[in-house]
Amino acid sequence: GAGADNDLYINQAIVFIEDAIQYRSINHRVDSKSLWLYRWYYSRTCQWILSLTITVILALAFIEEPSSLTITSDVRYRLPAWNPPCGLTESVELLCFLVFVVDVSVKSYLIGWKEFWKNKWLMAYILTLIVSLADWIVSLSFFCKESVRIRRILRPFFLLQNSSMMKKTLKSINSTLPEMASVVLLLAVHLSLFTMFAMLLFARTKDNQQDKEWVVYFRNLPDSLTSLLVLLTTANNPDVMIPAYSKNRAYSIFFILFTVLGNLFLMNLLTAIIYNQFRGYLLKSVQSSLLRRRLGIRAAFEVLSSLKETPASAQQSCVSVGALLQVLQKAEMDSRCKQAIMRSLKMCSCDQLSAAQFQKLFEELDKDAIKQHPPSPEYQSHFMQKVQFAFGHPYFGYLGNVVALANIISICVVLVMDADKQPSERDDFFLGAINCFFILYYLLEMLLKILAMGLKRYLSYPSNRFDGLLTVILLILEIATFAVYGFPHPGWRPEFMGLLSLWDMVRLVNMLIVFRFLRIIPNMKFMALVVTTLLDLVKNLRAFAGILVVVFYAFAITGIMLFKGAVQTFFIFNFLIQAPFSIKKVVVLYFKENKVISWCSAQAELIYCLLYLLSVHLICRWAKIYFVAWWLISSVIWVNLFVALLLENFLHKWDRRCQRESLSDIEYQRTVELMFRDVLEEPTEEELMEKLHQHPHLHLCR
Amino acid sequence: GAGADNDLYINQAIVFIEDAIQYRSINHRVDSKSLWLYRWYYSRTCQWILSLTITVILALAFIEEPSSLTITSDVRYRLPAWNPPCGLTESVELLCFLVFVVDVSVKSYLIGWKEFWKNKWLMAYILTLIVSLADWIVSLSFFCKESVRIRRILRPFFLLQNSSMMKKTLKSINSTLPEMASVVLLLAVHLSLFTMFAMLLFARTKDNQQDKEWVVYFRNLPDSLTSLLVLLTTANNPDVMIPAYSKNRAYSIFFILFTVLGNLFLMNLLTAIIYNQFRGYLLKSVQSSLLRRRLGIRAAFEVLSSLKETPASAQQSCVSVGALLQVLQKAEMDSRCKQAIMRSLKMCSCDQLSAAQFQKLFEELDKDAIKQHPPSPEYQSHFMQKVQFAFGHPYFGYLGNVVALANIISICVVLVMDADKQPSERDDFFLGAINCFFILYYLLEMLLKILAMGLKRYLSYPSNRFDGLLTVILLILEIATFAVYGFPHPGWRPEFMGLLSLWDMVRLVNMLIVFRFLRIIPNMKFMALVVTTLLDLVKNLRAFAGILVVVFYAFAITGIMLFKGAVQTFFIFNFLIQAPFSIKKVVVLYFKENKVISWCSAQAELIYCLLYLLSVHLICRWAKIYFVAWWLISSVIWVNLFVALLLENFLHKWDRRCQRESLSDIEYQRTVELMFRDVLEEPTEEELMEKLHQHPHLHLCR
Repeated sequence: GAGADNDLYINQAIVFIEDAIQYRSINHRVDSKSLWLYRWYYSRTCQWILSLTITVILALAFIEEPSSLTITSDVRYRLPAWNPPCGLTESVELLCFLVFVVDVSVKSYLIGWKEFWKNKWLMAYILTLIVSLADWIVSLSFFCKESVRIRRILRPFFLLQNSSMMKKTLKSINSTLPEMASVVLLLAVHLSLFTMFAMLLFARTKDNQQDKEWVVYFRNLPDSLTSLLVLLTTANNPDVMIPAYSKNRAYSIFFILFTVLGNLFLMNLLTAIIYNQFRGYLLKSVQSSLLRRRLGIRAAFEVLSSLKETPASAQQSCVSVGALLQVLQKAEMDSRCKQAIMRSLKMCSCDQLSAAQFQKLFEELDKDAIKQHPPSPEYQSHFMQKVQFAFGHPYFGYLGNVVALANIISICVVLVMDADKQPSERDDFFLGAINCFFILYYLLEMLLKILAMGLKRYLSYPSNRFDGLLTVILLILEIATFAVYGFPHPGWRPEFMGLLSLWDMVRLVNMLIVFRFLRIIPNMKFMALVVTTLLDLVKNLRAFAGILVVVFYAFAITGIMLFKGAVQTFFIFNFLIQAPFSIKKVVVLYFKENKVISWCSAQAELIYCLLYLLSVHLICRWAKIYFVAWWLISSVIWVNLFVALLLENFLHKWDRRCQRESLSDIEYQRTVELMFRDVLEEPTEEELMEKLHQHPHLHLCR
Repeated sequence: GAGADNDLYINQAIVFIEDAIQYRSINHRVDSKSLWLYRWYYSRTCQWILSLTITVILALAFIEEPSSLTITSDVRYRLPAWNPPCGLTESVELLCFLVFVVDVSVKSYLIGWKEFWKNKWLMAYILTLIVSLADWIVSLSFFCKESVRIRRILRPFFLLQNSSMMKKTLKSINSTLPEMASVVLLLAVHLSLFTMFAMLLFARTKDNQQDKEWVVYFRNLPDSLTSLLVLLTTANNPDVMIPAYSKNRAYSIFFILFTVLGNLFLMNLLTAIIYNQFRGYLLKSVQSSLLRRRLGIRAAFEVLSSLKETPASAQQSCVSVGALLQVLQKAEMDSRCKQAIMRSLKMCSCDQLSAAQFQKLFEELDKDAIKQHPPSPEYQSHFMQKVQFAFGHPYFGYLGNVVALANIISICVVLVMDADKQPSERDDFFLGAINCFFILYYLLEMLLKILAMGLKRYLSYPSNRFDGLLTVILLILEIATFAVYGFPHPGWRPEFMGLLSLWDMVRLVNMLIVFRFLRIIPNMKFMALVVTTLLDLVKNLRAFAGILVVVFYAFAITGIMLFKGAVQTFFIFNFLIQAPFSIKKVVVLYFKENKVISWCSAQAELIYCLLYLLSVHLICRWAKIYFVAWWLISSVIWVNLFVALLLENFLHKWDRRCQRESLSDIEYQRTVELMFRDVLEEPTEEELMEKLHQHPHLHLCR
């Protein structure tokens, strides 16, 4: 009947508006039951369960068999890691798989049969699940004794497929690959030509004294290639040229030429290429989000305009205000936005809304959440007004910064003086006394500020919240210390006992005071700019970080499987984490067996060290390829991607800063969408309608 | 009289046009004598003498007293460096100073008294000369035994002041300094806060087994700062966290946080800032060059239009064609341009030229030198025409590339096979024979190409010139080898005697063959793009490289003076050269005395090594500051500048490539000015006239 139809339309409009808010695609089934399923699937609980499942299945690696996660990494002290019995992790895995099966079925059903065949991600999802389940059955039938577990390498796929941002980013990276491959090819040509040159230049001679260079670095083709590859990471830079250089200074020309061409030109060319590809990346992604939002709202308008109550005589399609109010009340959205839309809806006197008016109403969604700080209390007394003026003034804040700096300096002085003292000689009286004084000042500052601004206004500033929280923690710590150890007095010795000894307490207080000093950030313009850029960057980097986690996980599991028994798990994890930062060191460490000794000697236990030496030697061939691959991915590609994104973000921010000179307040709630607002293009009416008519399930009657 | 006036005007016009061609400022004296002096000063001979003088005075450092320039750097083998007697280098210096005195006087006279006082560079030049001469007198009166020679540090200034490009670049760098200083300040805050944290975290405990981290890295404030500064260069990355990490894995969070914030964020932020500042640098510099050119031409027009022969009745000022022809004949300019301008002047039927027409004539200067390859010879015989078609076809070139590749592969195979053989076991028969065959093919290829294209057309392609030159050299080497050692036969042993033994000859031939393989570059699109970008970059980098040389020279001389006696000169030079590429290694090497041992052990001579150890220990305080300063300048700032310029150049090139899809030929003669032609703004008429009226010496009569 008409009522049921109307209900369906209302429900459709609700879902479309929710899609618009979340930037979701509207290409899903739109019948009543599917809509219910859709809202259930995208409800917070369901999505939360899905995320939890993904986290659990990824975290399993930490407790599964070859893991060696313990607090200390020193084999001499640590206990053997807990080994779960066969079947425990497996049953958790099965549970996760079941959740994924439900997930994939619901997703496939909701997008419909036709769309399903076009969606490669869903197909891959199903394939991954089938392979994982098969592997799981094999695993159980061997009573967990089988050596290869393919499903572990496949696990990160579940993380990947669940995030549309990551899928989009992956597509972008994919389109950059051909050009990156060109540069990598160029690097390979560079490397091989120079290797041939080196082998001809540093050939074996009759005089054994003279050919040190040949013996150590260019004995044969693999050695020469390795030497120059390592030189490309600049790890062996002074060493590799020393023997040749001491023979004849002119040999250094060869090495300088190689390094300048390879390191300065080709490596930076890679940065340039990646930056060039990613210059428009953020803008494009924000633009497509905008299209999704406009499309969702337009779809809601179209279904609402087909409601029976609308006067059919109207030439232009339009929507009644009543219907929209009904939809708004049921839709899940930010309460601030909802109220703002309701308000403007009431202010608008008309009864019917055109498409443009409808769209305009929802522009509230795109707007900055303008944070209104609550007003200060108004005091009657003249004295109180003066007090309020004095302690509400920015200069009072600056004074606080100066005091915090003084505190830091005093701690620093004590640290320098106590640096070489034996712990038993140390006396914490001085530090305890001044810290006590400073913390009292902090408390006073906080109370006076609350008095001047009122509690609500005080708490509405993030810097005050940070400040206040730390002050309260410091106060509690201080009171606890005094309660146990008494007030500071000469000979207030640090003792080393209990969970939180006086020694630990004092250090903790000092650390918190150092940390509290970060409150100066918003007061320094440039620092504030940098910090906000970094925060933006972290938001935009989530997708990249996710992909890095996926690759890291796959690499780590592959490494564990490849070098099982030969090296410990934590060894591989360590290597992978350190690679992007210190590849230069790590490569030398892991490439040259003799270097392992020097590293091992730091570990103090010879047997442990010899084990490493042996294992590194055994796996050297495989390890080289594995390490070089990881170096390329993490250090070369990912770090360059990061630099590209940082450049993009920072340059944009910088341009904006120059436009609006007054960076009065840090706007933490600024989103990427808003950053690009001035450059975004609104989709046209025709574009929207064309997209709507291509909708596989919604059949508009015009 | 009028004739003398006319001569003056003609001379002025000639000089102004030469100024326009060389992008020089026109703000100099314009009376007859000054013009003669000006043309003499900017004549090739004078400028060449000036450049030579600068080179000589800079090169003096290589033979002056503390220098240790010898072929081998090994103290055991090398002879003591030649020590020039007192007075020799000093008299050369005096000669140079005299040239500079002449230079500065001419320059000051030419720009005029008023301008002189505004020109800080000239004042600094005079001051430098005075200080240098005073120091020179002191030096001589001590019979060259004085220890401090200030004038050596001042020498690079002579290089700096002679290049307008370098002065402009320095100005740009100067304007970036405040923002760079902000980031460096941020880095300092980051470093000091983390240092305090580290000292609190890794404090000394009662259990000596437990505080390895404290003993090795965080013993006191300077140690902690050094440890973390070195960590910022990632040099000690795995080492510094190992003791803490083996105690508790959670400590790694501290190090990871420090590295991510410092290395990934702050260091790259520096790149972003420098790139942001230099984004418009090239464009701005090209734009100001354009203004100078237009101004010079306009000035020439204005002076020519005041010639007496011009009809006074004309409303608009104009220039007679005859006068212009007279000027053109006397002006020094590229003969191609001159002819082109003459030609279009003849084609234009009019007798008088307006300002616009005049300006348009000289646009020839801005144009690409379109390289017309001479035509191929036209053969009558049908057979010859077929031969010409076959060997003039690009496929014949590709075949040549394939053959070159085959040659390289064969050399590579022989190298791999011979890698571990004793020199006495080796037999060069196989390699000699195939190289002989390949070189014959190369000769044939060259001859056939010359036959098909004609010698002139063949030589007009740079790739052919490269190819042909190497082929001829290879041929000569091969003939010489055969003349001395006979044709290759089994047992054609490499011998080690004479200046060029068979052994050296064969290696040299192989190296040249590898080098010849670079002819494939123009055939690979992406490679060609990269190579042209690099060539452009090298052109644009000249100014930066010059500034680097200036800073490097000053640093090296300071280092020699600071650490005189303690370390050898070459030690400092080495350090400075290596720093930008491998600072991570070098810092560790030079910071931690115990590391010096391991480096020394490569030098095989213990006494030599102990000397180093002692000296490094002695100068450790000074050395740290000196090394950190150089690290900041070379590795952080200069490398980032380089990356910024590379990004700028490459992105621009890339955009252009997308516009004109066909990168048919490499255009080596493309200049920076042309690269930006589409974006440059022409200066307006008013702008030009305003500048002309501000000219301090030229008084236009309107």
